[in-house]
Formats: sequence, structure tokens, C-alpha cells
Amino acid sequence: MGRARLRDLGLSTGTLPTGPLNAITDVAGVEVGHATLIRDEPAIVRSGVTMIWPSRDIWTDYCFAGFHSFNGNGEMTGTIWLAEQGLLSAPIGITCTHCVGVVRDAICSYAAREGIRQAFHLPVVAETHDGWLSDAETFPVTAAMAHAALDQAAAGPVAEGAVGGGTGMICHEFKGGIGTSSRLVETGGEQFTVGALVQANYGSRDLLRVDGVPVGREIPHAEVPGHRIPMADGGSIIVILATDAPLLPIQCQRLARRATTGLAWVGGIGANGSGDIFLAFSTGNRVRNNAPHADVRMLGAERMTPLFRAAAEATEEAILNALTAAETMTGFKGRTLYALPLDRLQQVMTRYRPKPL
Amino acid sequence: MGRARLRDLGLSTGTLPTGPLNAITDVAGVEVGHATLIRDEPAIVRSGVTMIWPSRDIWTDYCFAGFHSFNGNGEMTGTIWLAEQGLLSAPIGITCTHCVGVVRDAICSYAAREGIRQAFHLPVVAETHDGWLSDAETFPVTAAMAHAALDQAAAGPVAEGAVGGGTGMICHEFKGGIGTSSRLVETGGEQFTVGALVQANYGSRDLLRVDGVPVGREIPHAEVPGHRIPMADGGSIIVILATDAPLLPIQCQRLARRATTGLAWVGGIGANGSGDIFLAFSTGNRVRNNAPHADVRMLGAERMTPLFRAAAEATEEAILNALTAAETMTGFKGRTLYALPLDRLQQVMTRYRPKPL
Amino acid sequence: MGRARLRDLGLSTGTLPTGPLNAITDVAGVEVGHATLIRDEPAIVRSGVTMIWPSRDIWTDYCFAGFHSFNGNGEMTGTIWLAEQGLLSAPIGITCTHCVGVVRDAICSYAAREGIRQAFHLPVVAETHDGWLSDAETFPVTAAMAHAALDQAAAGPVAEGAVGGGTGMICHEFKGGIGTSSRLVETGGEQFTVGALVQANYGSRDLLRVDGVPVGREIPHAEVPGHRIPMADGGSIIVILATDAPLLPIQCQRLARRATTGLAWVGGIGANGSGDIFLAFSTGNRVRNNAPHADVRMLGAERMTPLFRAAAEATEEAILNALTAAETMTGFKGRTLYALPLDRLQQVMTRYRPKPL
Amino acid sequence: MGRARLRDLGLSTGTLPTGPLNAITDVAGVEVGHATLIRDEPAIVRSGVTMIWPSRDIWTDYCFAGFHSFNGNGEMTGTIWLAEQGLLSAPIGITCTHCVGVVRDAICSYAAREGIRQAFHLPVVAETHDGWLSDAETFPVTAAMAHAALDQAAAGPVAEGAVGGGTGMICHEFKGGIGTSSRLVETGGEQFTVGALVQANYGSRDLLRVDGVPVGREIPHAEVPGHRIPMADGGSIIVILATDAPLLPIQCQRLARRATTGLAWVGGIGANGSGDIFLAFSTGNRVRNNAPHADVRMLGAERMTPLFRAAAEATEEAILNALTAAETMTGFKGRTLYALPLDRLQQVMTRYRPKPL
Repeated sequence: MGRARLRDLGLSTGTLPTGPLNAITDVAGVEVGHATLIRDEPAIVRSGVTMIWPSRDIWTDYCFAGFHSFNGNGEMTGTIWLAEQGLLSAPIGITCTHCVGVVRDAICSYAAREGIRQAFHLPVVAETHDGWLSDAETFPVTAAMAHAALDQAAAGPVAEGAVGGGTGMICHEFKGGIGTSSRLVETGGEQFTVGALVQANYGSRDLLRVDGVPVGREIPHAEVPGHRIPMADGGSIIVILATDAPLLPIQCQRLARRATTGLAWVGGIGANGSGDIFLAFSTGNRVRNNAPHADVRMLGAERMTPLFRAAAEATEEAILNALTAAETMTGFKGRTLYALPLDRLQQVMTRYRPKPL
Repeated sequence: MGRARLRDLGLSTGTLPTGPLNAITDVAGVEVGHATLIRDEPAIVRSGVTMIWPSRDIWTDYCFAGFHSFNGNGEMTGTIWLAEQGLLSAPIGITCTHCVGVVRDAICSYAAREGIRQAFHLPVVAETHDGWLSDAETFPVTAAMAHAALDQAAAGPVAEGAVGGGTGMICHEFKGGIGTSSRLVETGGEQFTVGALVQANYGSRDLLRVDGVPVGREIPHAEVPGHRIPMADGGSIIVILATDAPLLPIQCQRLARRATTGLAWVGGIGANGSGDIFLAFSTGNRVRNNAPHADVRMLGAERMTPLFRAAAEATEEAILNALTAAETMTGFKGRTLYALPLDRLQQVMTRYRPKPL
Repeated sequence: MGRARLRDLGLSTGTLPTGPLNAITDVAGVEVGHATLIRDEPAIVRSGVTMIWPSRDIWTDYCFAGFHSFNGNGEMTGTIWLAEQGLLSAPIGITCTHCVGVVRDAICSYAAREGIRQAFHLPVVAETHDGWLSDAETFPVTAAMAHAALDQAAAGPVAEGAVGGGTGMICHEFKGGIGTSSRLVETGGEQFTVGALVQANYGSRDLLRVDGVPVGREIPHAEVPGHRIPMADGGSIIVILATDAPLLPIQCQRLARRATTGLAWVGGIGANGSGDIFLAFSTGNRVRNNAPHADVRMLGAERMTPLFRAAAEATEEAILNALTAAETMTGFKGRTLYALPLDRLQQVMTRYRPKPL
Repeated sequence: MGRARLRDLGLSTGTLPTGPLNAITDVAGVEVGHATLIRDEPAIVRSGVTMIWPSRDIWTDYCFAGFHSFNGNGEMTGTIWLAEQGLLSAPIGITCTHCVGVVRDAICSYAAREGIRQAFHLPVVAETHDGWLSDAETFPVTAAMAHAALDQAAAGPVAEGAVGGGTGMICHEFKGGIGTSSRLVETGGEQFTVGALVQANYGSRDLLRVDGVPVGREIPHAEVPGHRIPMADGGSIIVILATDAPLLPIQCQRLARRATTGLAWVGGIGANGSGDIFLAFSTGNRVRNNAPHADVRMLGAERMTPLFRAAAEATEEAILNALTAAETMTGFKGRTLYALPLDRLQQVMTRYRPKPL
């Protein structure tokens, strides 16, 4: 399950309480599955796919969803349908850039295999590029892997770091990957959960901050070498936000935009080559496929701000969890990408603690 | 009330039935008011403002709404708020280009005068340019006129042609102005109304069609002179769509886009200089200001298509009603703009009737 | 090459002159290739893929492009990158809905095979659904077919009707498919070409019009049976517009929106289940990959309107060419879809000719 | 000119060098003017308007521009035209919410007065709400004030704090207002300037950070009372970014989105009631009105990232400059809003300095 989570290290960010798992799966019904591919023959591959079920019955009971592209140097399929209808109608895939297509079609073939009675599907599949650690031009991810990730997905704790779609990722010039976090929100007397899952593959070392502390500047390349992602060469982050608050599509769009804030807090600025694309869905309303109408609930606009804060905090901590979980990896062309050293992280954080009054 | 409506001439377009008034006011609660300014001293002015109340209690019981800009060479205030929240929270104004600001602020001051207890308002005010027939640089519309249009607005038949914001308008090189129409829709066993109101100030003569018949080409400038709007000089159409179908904001956006279809049927192509901007609102859901949450109803996606057809048809006929209602007008610099000759319209339509089998 | 083109029948629409081929390939550099799959074993398949090269060197010399989703019940990959950068950097694919992914990845693998030195690609692949005539759940299109369509693409006349991605399509309840057309435009003393290629799979019979004449109503189901596409079941149209006019990305977006007008003229209203998605690219500026800067030319805004008209006319005629080219086809489950009867089309058009004055 | 600038206090943020003035006016040609209204009779008013000239000849030599709405609970006029054409064609106004209209029309009347030969204008005017310190319902700003701000605008240092449109503003529950900053960027061997000007009227105390240090939490309400802006009641930030880098409209949109990052670094999360709306313009290309075409230069995509960082840093420091400049103010209903105490700011920053290794 990765080396450690941020809170295992005695560190944390934000002010809102986390859910019991501090994971996207704190939102009831959400399940996550990974298929991880680490092999050296016939080619060196460090890749995979991660699947997120908003709910196992998503094929027939849609969720409202919305997306935001902070910097669109990447792919997320299904967004034209999301922009039109605001409905999510299939599980969500995250994988490597060259594998978006096979994973997208695999969701369709999975539905066909399961006997889902709809003529077609417009699934959401997003990507970040793993070509530095993995021989991406072997197009390694298969439909079978995508199906396995869908089958094996589960509620409960979520594996983080170099797993699933996050296997070959790089974050702030340390080893990156999958991370997750959640927040509990009280607004207007009701309690809701906001969860985030990220596939983090972006960022400059010198911009990395943890709770405002410039950790990246304090751990320079002279100490821990890092792969600096060339601007045009990729680097990206996909953020999936889930909530049980009853939101309309337009409100999901609002929530998705707040991943920008959490990303900024860690040090993401949407570099040119980055595909920083965010999706938020709500399980608080379900719309049955082909229903003549749906009675839905809309959280009052004036109650949204705590959710926005939760989305920012959960995104921030999910990225940090990806960094603390991921282990040093050697891959394509003998390249080694180093993990964020946890002892050094703790030292730096201690040094920046305020002096007593 | 204008010279004639299209159906008074024995003509019609589309296949869906109209509402009882064949006007946007067929949607229960909608009220329309005009303030018209036609004067020759101290300057020659042919201008005004038209106000549309989605409902008199719109200040506190918001409607969902969405907009679409087919060609954005124009202004519609309030769209950033609409894009964010999908809520319409004030009456809608349509006026001349130079008067957008005064009308916008006048809606705020009207609210203040009425004791509406909200800190501020973000009203929707749109415009088309009347500078060919009116001395626009006198900035003729006043807050008092805007207030009068709000006060005098009423349900029932709507005056069309050269009234209110439509006073100085030009359409397909004939006299244009305000027009309205409506359609009744049956979908999934329920009946809904879709109404349109346009301020039509766009278009080339040679593209004008009535129910597919190339009326514009058949009535050339040699016969009826027309003012050809230079591309960069304006020309625009504002379309306001209303419905009692219970739509979400994202569905209102969809409906608004269908004004494009009706506009195309008459011959509008979104010329470069044109501000072709459309707004659709639904009275089928009301959201009380500051309510902690709202229970709303969403028409099933599969039931939307008849509404789309209705929006296209109502927009088409509203434009044609503006043309048949508006009378020849002489204005600024002694310019005369001729009305579409109704007898010639009928002759052309007769000539194009299909031969018997 | 299909049964006939509209102009072969002595019919035409619009007023602008066509290019020499009356095809998207009138824009210099553009090449089109089809791979068509018609087989009855082991499953009945009527499917394929169509590829459009803006230019063979598109991998390294990008074009500006923009898109518009009139009704987004469909997929077009690559749009998030297009929205961000306005650059088209790979050939464009159009295929069946279940095959978007394989075609998308196939464009990436084609680039890898050709030794294109870029880390990754974000190609544009769009779709319409052929599940009524074809056993879509067999996922019939392969990477090899996509590669073949890329290899075999050529300048010159373009095959129309039931070919490539258009093989199994339905249009206004007649047999649909691929169609193309072009227009020559003179604006500000320069001449430009606008070409359109459509994959037409949408529409109600009763809305079909040819040059304003209600052809669909005149050829009812009692005379020629048709498959009425259920609202939620698909139906879609993809429109690709090409021009050599030097446009910026934002201007390409404008051009793309005008496909809506041409579609409306034929009778498309963006039904709920339809993916009506349009892309426009300009070969009038080329931007070299990784160039530190580019000197580009921008057509003045005031010169855009003739291009808008050309885009509408070319889209309209491309759809009609798809209808006149496509032949009656029998496919999945023994279903037969009838072609638009050309003799009847001509009869109806004759009946609606205006009577002499 | 305000109490102090951040750097006067020995503090700074970011890593890029500032321009000579550390102001938006470091971009050659940009001029800023304020008209400030502080009076107690007949009503208590703390309001005004700030005008930004991208260049004095903007009426005829347009700039490319783009905008982003991070949270659209506010107004920015002119955005529909910006989205369509990407052109800025008039000076930009920022004022109070109730005064958007009068300032918008005043820009039009200023053009008319100056004899600008264009039929109409679609100016950009944005707002934040000052109703806590000012009797907003008196609609205090006049066309004459707007004209004065246009006339008096100048290059050189920019007054900050409670001036112009920023007079009555509140930021992170301290006194807010106008702030500005700039950054110099080297990319691909060329040097460019990015400047920001903000009207800051948003934010929770507990989220305020300076260079990552949680200053807001360290100066609680018990120490310095603050006005907590209710969610639904306003709070907003307008950010205007200027650069001399040669950008296309789509690239200006990208730049505008980066204000989100700088805002996040200070602690802005786009609360529900906030109008967080950003505009970026480039003086590096000029497009002459009505020119048949324009030869323009486009910075290569791969060279954009330093500009993005500069936009984030300049936005961050502009907000902090607004806070350090603004003085404690008493206004409407006797309410007092306290300035950020500069000595306490310095103390907190010192306490959070890292301990030596």
C-alpha cells in the first residue's frame, strides 16, 4: 500500500477533518481498482490502469458530474457528453497516454459483456504520460487489464503510489503516482464527504510545498536527483473528486474547478505541457437511465463554500499522499526516479515550525 | 400592436401547435413591458427598452437559466453569473447598444426602490444597435424608462415590431424589431409550453426565407430598398426563450442553443458583426434565494427533443412576426427603412406552393 | 463512388461557387482515406473508419483548429487539447462509436511506426453509432484498418455514401454516410476555399429539406420505409471543415459553429441523442512543433462573414451528397435501410419550383 | 500611495525578478487612473472607479485578450465579445457592483466625445461589492468620474490600497483594495514583462498566507477584528494581467487562468459568493480595427510556462500589496474595517523563518 501516508509521518494539511479512510472511498458506493504492469521483458514497462466506480450500478443509475481543464495538454474522453448532459454513466478510467483508447473501448466491451442494455457508452478515460520510466510505445495496457481493474475494484482503503495508472509517474521531480484523501464537511446542519483521487505526474521541484513550507527548495537535486519534465514533454495531473452532497451538474463543474486550488497549494501551476484535468461527481442524486423525469435535490448555493474548501484540501493531501507512498523506481533505459525522502521531509517540516512567542 | 402577425396573413411555419397567444407570455407568469422612445427633438431618436419578467417574484424565487452565444459581437450582461450558478434572479432587459449600462443599473435601482433585500444584483441586459435610424450617441434611454417598462409589463398579448428595444431595428434589410411566438409540446404524457421573444436586427436580404421559400431573393432592392448592415457595423439578434418544462441549468443551456436552428431557418448565419446571443429560462423549477437546499425536477434527457423543436420553431416564427409587424420608419439623417411588403410576401408564398401531383 | 452527387441530378443549394472537386480536398494538402468493412461472417458488420489528413506533415507542422459541440451526445477525442492550444497535430479519424478508442490509439501507433519524434499525441477521433445495421458489439474496427485508411488517403475526389466511417449510417431515416462539398470565397480581394466532410447519421424524415423544399414530408414512410432513430439511441453528425484562409484558433472555433447553420438548413435540430460535433481547421497558418515562436497571419474579423456562409453552404451540400450517394443497404438482423430515391427527389424539387410570374 | 508595499517591509514572494516599478505599468503603454469618492454627505460613500488603458490608442489598435471566471458570482461586461473575437478594443474599468452600468456606458460616451469613429463599443467593466463600508444603493459613481479616471490615467507608479474601484474593499477580513505587481520573464532568449493589477475584496482571515506562512491564523479576530463576508453577500477579486509577450487570444485565456494559482497562494478558494474573474491582455500584438488582415506573432507553446509562473507570482504579490497599502477605514453605519497590521505581519514572518541547519 505504499511507504507511508502523510499523516503517518505526523504531518497534515488543511483544517477540515478527514473521513474514516481518508480516501475517495469514504464516499459511500465508490470503489477503486488498480491493474499494475511492471515487467522487464520483452520491454521495460512501468504502467497500468486505475478504475473508479462512482457506484456499481452506474450503468443504469447515472450520477451528475462536471469537469474542468486547468491546462488541457492531455486527454479526458467523455467530456463533450459531460458538458452536454452533466451525467456520468460509466466507471472512470485513468491510465497512460498511449492507452486511453484501449481503456475507453474496454469499458464499452465490459458493459457489453455484462449485458448492459444500452446501445453505446461515452466513458470518461483520462491519462498522464509515463514514457520516461516505461517503454510507452509498446502500448502495454490491454482490455483484459482494464476489465481486471473493474472486476477487482473495491471499497475500503486504496493502494497509493506506483500502482495502477500511477505506476510510472513523476511528481515534482520525485516519484509520483496515485494518491487519495477525503474531508468531512458540515454545511447547513448536514454532513457530507468530499473525496479526491489523483494520478500525479507534474511539477517542478522548486515549487513543491507542504502546508506552505518550501520542501522542494530544501531538497535540491544535488541531494536527491530528479527528472525534470521538459515543458513540452508531458507532466500532468488528473484529479477525480467525489461527494455525496446533492449537487446539480453545474455545481459539480464548480467543485471540479477547486482542484486548481489544492494543486496550487502543493505547487502546481499548470505548466504548458501539463494536462491538468479535473472531474467531480456527486452520488447525492441518481438519475435512472431513460427515466421520464427525475426528482433531484440541489444544495443551496450559499452552502457550497465548505465543499469548495474540502475539495481543495482533499486534492492537496491526495497529491502529498502520492508522494509519500511512492517508492524509488528504476525503469526504461535504466533510469531511476527517486522517492521523496520521508526523513528529510520531516526534518524540513520541523525546521519551519514557528518559533514560540 | 404592429401591422400583422404571420398567421394573420394565412401563413405559418413549423408543425407544432402554438399557445393561445402565440407569444412568450403563454408561459405562465411571464410578463413583457416596452418603453418606446420616438422623438425628433433635440435629436432624432428611435429607441427604447423591453423588459421581460420570468415571474414578478423573480427577485426571491430564482429560475434556472442558460445562455448561448452563437456569434458574440454584442453584449449580454449577467452571463458570468449564469454560467456559474445557472440562476436568473432579476428581470431581463433588451435595449440599444449604448444603453446596456443604464438599463442594467436601473434594474438594480428598481430592486432597491422595491425594498428587495439583497446586497446586489447581476441582471441580464442585452442589446442590438439602432444607430442607423437613431442618434445613438445621445444615449437616449434613461433609468426612468427602464423602470416604466418594468412597471407596465403585463401578461397577455405582446406588442411587436418597432416597440421597446426593437424600435430602431433592421432585419434582413427590412424594418425589424420585437417579435414573439410560442409552441405547445407533448412529451412523455405531459404538456409544456416554449415561448420565444426576439429583438431582431440582423441579416442579409438575399438569405431571408419563410418556411423554406426564398422570399428575400424575390423582393430585391430594386423593388424595396433596404439598408445593408455592414459586417463590422452591427446587426444582431437577441432571443429569449421561456418554458414551463422543469429543466436544470445545463438543460436550459441546451435549449438556448436551439435558437440557432430557428435563426438559420429564417436566414441568419451569425455574420461577423452580429451579436446573436440567446437565453433560455425555465419556470418549471423555482429556487428560493438563500434556501439551504431545493427539491427540483429534471425532465428526462430522452424527453428533450420536442422542446428543442419547439424552441427552433418559436424562434423562427418570432422573427417573422417582427418582420410582419414592423412598419416603415424614417429616422436619423432622414433615412427611411421599409417594412416587408405583406402583399408581396403573400404573392411569393403563393408562387412557391407545390404544384398538385 | 456512390450513386450520384446532388449536382449530378441538376440540383444545388447555396449561392457560392464550389471548388473544382466540390470536396474537402479542394483545400490544398488535405487528403482523405476510407477503410470500409462489409462482411456477414462471423458477424454482420457494416462499419469502417475515415481518415482526414490536414496535411501529410501535420505531425510536425501543426494547423490551427477549433471545435463546437452543438449537441454533445457523442465523442470527439482531443478536444481538451484543442481548447487549450488551438492546434491540430495529427490526422483526424471518424469511425463508429465503439471503435473510437482503437482508432485513437492507432493514430499514436502509426506515428510511432513512422518514427515521429514526439513523446505522445492527442489525436482527434470522432464517431457516430452504426449499431442498427452493424453488430457493433463485435468491436469490428482494428488498428490495421485505421493504418490502412491513413496510408491510402489521397487528394482528389472523395468516395461518398456508405464508405469508411459512414458505412452503416442513417440520415433523415434514409441511408446516410460520408459526404463532402466545398465553396470558393472572395473576401477583401483574396480567394479562399472552405471544404466540408460529414459523417451523417442523424435526423427525422419529416424535417428533411433540400434548398428549402420539404422533401422529407413528401416521401413518407408509407412510400419508403425508414428507420426512425430513437432519441436516446444515437443519431449524430460529425462535420469537419477545412479552409486555406489564415485563421487563428479562435476564428476556427467561429467557423466550426457555422456547421450548425448548414445542418439546420437540411433539417438537423440537434436531437437529444445526437452527437452533433464540428471541427474546423485552417491550413493558412502552420506552426512548427517546438518552434520558439511563429509568425502567423490573421484574416480581419470584417472579412470572416463570407467564410461563415461558405461553411454553412458546404455543410448543407455535404449532407445532401451523403444522401444522394448512399445506396440501400441490408445488414444486422436482416434490417434494410433504403436510400433516398433520386427520381422522387427530382420530382419533388420540380413540383416546388416557383410558378412563373 | 498607501502605507507600504510588501517589499518595503523586507518581505517578498516568488522567485522571478520584478519590473522597475513592480507594477502593471511596467508593461509599456499601460496606464492606470483612479477616481476615488470618499464623502459623508448626503450619504456615506467609500467608492470609486479604476481605469486601465492597455494603450491610449486601444480604440483603433486592438489588443488580444482572454478571460477566465474562476467563480462567477460577479460581473465583467464585454466577455461575450472577448470570447468571440479575442480582441480588447477599449480601456478597462473596475468599480463597485452597482456602478458597472454607468461606467460601461461612460466608456462609450468617452469614445463618442473623443470622436472615435466606430458605431459602438463593447467595453470590459468589472466590479466588486463595497456595500459594507459604502452606501451602495446611492449609486455613487458617475460618468464624469469615469471620464476623469480615463483622463488622469498615467504610466509610472500606481496608487494602491483604498483608491479608485478599491476604495471600499475588504480582503481576508482586513482592509483591501487595489494592488499591483510585475515580473520579468526570460524565455527562449527574449525578455517579457507580466504585470498584474487586482481589486481585492474576498477571503477568509484563516486562509490568508504570505509566502506560505499562515499569517491570517496568527492574527485572529480577538486581536484585530475583521468583517467576515457572508458567503452569499459578495466578496470578489478582479485580476487584470498585462504582458508584452506576443500572445494569441487563446494564449491570453491560458494566462488569465493562472491568476487562480496566485490567488490560491494567498488563500483565495473562490467562495460561493465571490466573483473571481480574471482578464489577460497582450500588447505584443496589435490589430488595427478594420484591417483586412494582420500579421501577428505567436509565442511558442513550449515557452509559455515562465509566463504562467510570472502571472501567478504577480497576482499573489499584487494582492499582498493591496493589503499592506490599504489603511484602516470607517464608513457606512459607522463600521470600521482594520488594516493588516504591518508590524504584526513582520513579526509573524520572522517567527516562521526556518531554523538554521
